[in-house]
Amino acid sequence: MTPLRTIDWHDGDIVIVDQTALPAELRTLRVHTVEELVAAIRRLAVRGAMALGVAGALGIALAAIRARERGEDVDRATEDAAARLIGARPTAVNLAWGVDRALVASAGGPAAMLAAALAVLAADIEANTAIGRRGAALLVGRRRILTHCNAGSLAAVERGTALAVIGALHDMDELDLVYACETRPLLQGARLTTWELGRMGIAHRLIVDGAAAGLIVGGRVDAVVVGADRIAANGDVANKVGTLAHALAARRAGIPFVVAAPESTIDPATARGADIEIEERDGREVLGFGGAVTAPVGTVAANPAFDVTPADLVSAIVTERRTIVPSASPAFAIATLV
Amino acid sequence: MTPLRTIDWHDGDIVIVDQTALPAELRTLRVHTVEELVAAIRRLAVRGAMALGVAGALGIALAAIRARERGEDVDRATEDAAARLIGARPTAVNLAWGVDRALVASAGGPAAMLAAALAVLAADIEANTAIGRRGAALLVGRRRILTHCNAGSLAAVERGTALAVIGALHDMDELDLVYACETRPLLQGARLTTWELGRMGIAHRLIVDGAAAGLIVGGRVDAVVVGADRIAANGDVANKVGTLAHALAARRAGIPFVVAAPESTIDPATARGADIEIEERDGREVLGFGGAVTAPVGTVAANPAFDVTPADLVSAIVTERRTIVPSASPAFAIATLV
Repeated sequence: MTPLRTIDWHDGDIVIVDQTALPAELRTLRVHTVEELVAAIRRLAVRGAMALGVAGALGIALAAIRARERGEDVDRATEDAAARLIGARPTAVNLAWGVDRALVASAGGPAAMLAAALAVLAADIEANTAIGRRGAALLVGRRRILTHCNAGSLAAVERGTALAVIGALHDMDELDLVYACETRPLLQGARLTTWELGRMGIAHRLIVDGAAAGLIVGGRVDAVVVGADRIAANGDVANKVGTLAHALAARRAGIPFVVAAPESTIDPATARGADIEIEERDGREVLGFGGAVTAPVGTVAANPAFDVTPADLVSAIVTERRTIVPSASPAFAIATLV
Repeated sequence: MTPLRTIDWHDGDIVIVDQTALPAELRTLRVHTVEELVAAIRRLAVRGAMALGVAGALGIALAAIRARERGEDVDRATEDAAARLIGARPTAVNLAWGVDRALVASAGGPAAMLAAALAVLAADIEANTAIGRRGAALLVGRRRILTHCNAGSLAAVERGTALAVIGALHDMDELDLVYACETRPLLQGARLTTWELGRMGIAHRLIVDGAAAGLIVGGRVDAVVVGADRIAANGDVANKVGTLAHALAARRAGIPFVVAAPESTIDPATARGADIEIEERDGREVLGFGGAVTAPVGTVAANPAFDVTPADLVSAIVTERRTIVPSASPAFAIATLV
């Protein structure tokens, strides 16, 4: 099966896999105007740093092409589109970055902006393919992989990061089983990762997050592979809440804990993990499950969205360009990885 | 507020807090016959090793008293009740144990069997009170406690084990905050522990299980206190799935990981944790919650009910009789606990 492309350009429109319909249904949205794209971004039909970067770039091209078709002012249309796209998810830095990537080509007109946007899209696919190959090469012989959250194609254009590594191992016939952690509170693992693994034809088991440590320490997992939301200059890794426990278990079991992420995730301005502010999300995400409220009325939740895995627990960070070994125990990392 | 008594004897009947109605409603069941008690056990209105032991003992006394009132054969009635009670939850060893405790007094008639059953009930309360005091004495000065699952009064007659320790710290004015892990897949923490903590007037925050490690390693927790389902002779502890990750995080953070459990939980016939068979439960518990299915149709789950925390990660096991320090790093355990 061809890799899933989460966002693409087709016949003058943006085509998006509507993630709000998953896993029940694979529905594609054909986006003809910037208004439609802004609406899709707002309701999280498209999400994930890399996918949003591409959405921003393609959105500018879309605005320019529609304006030209209608005989409207292209520059005014793209400026207006830029403001509305960035405003759709103000904290998503990649969205603004993608918008800029298309805008810098504006002197060349709509065709040049589309070319710039398609270059962003192609670069994303290339980066993820490289991450997948590099990570898989490190992990040959480790046939049972555990992952957390959704670091798959649904957060990128194609392949994703951790799931790109898993997909490459599968393509090499070097994979037996993937354990997908459900990833409370929002269940991205249960809803999205299982769906992607099923589509890729990869054998997998869904587990509650708390079951991971027992499986890892019990010898049923050969490596942990996750994505990253931000990587500090010292190698500390911020990722979806629940990741740190898997890293602690991996160290206890003596198996590699590998982070797969694009170079853009590495933030040289952040010295260490303790400097990363952890987003505290709405407690209602914790107080219930799938629409049902499970905790007593009045219960207060703490709901950090991320945790920080210290660099010494990270066996390797795999990017599109290099493999970084931040572990304070390099003997462990190198001995077990190479 | 007086401690909650999960199961009790009142005016010739057994009175039970119906756990299936929690946390929405505190409903008590008045149980007049063995048939009613068997039904309550089957639908988990009463659950937990210690509570079931008391239920078994009181059930035999109930059968004897009803038979005497009706002019029926007391011996035949208690024998019949024993078979039906044990059959209600065949794997619950404490249920059979409680039945036996009342049956051994059968020569003395209904009054003697009731006295034996009430002795089981009183001993349970006494044991849990002792566990609470002993654990709290170890943890004075550690004002932010994290716990997992429900090791509270709802699994016992009164106070419970881990929650007995927490309650005793609260009574000593030595407690600031409790983090209650929701405990997927069945959410005993979200549904029951929060309810008990609220009733005890203890400040608490509900968290997803995956958030525990980040809070512990981030310095926001001073000790982890949990119950146990079975303790091997070498000090390895089997407890509700998710416990091991908290123990790993506690070791990383250098804070105590304390297990509160009655002596009856220690199984000298099991040499080590690896010898404990881990119950694999129905995968549907993982695929959704309540009626809601979150994973794609056809997804297969792995659903181990317990995990094993190795003895070297356990700072102390607190029972009604003693404090056991199984840690392979006694310097750590003693230095941080005493």
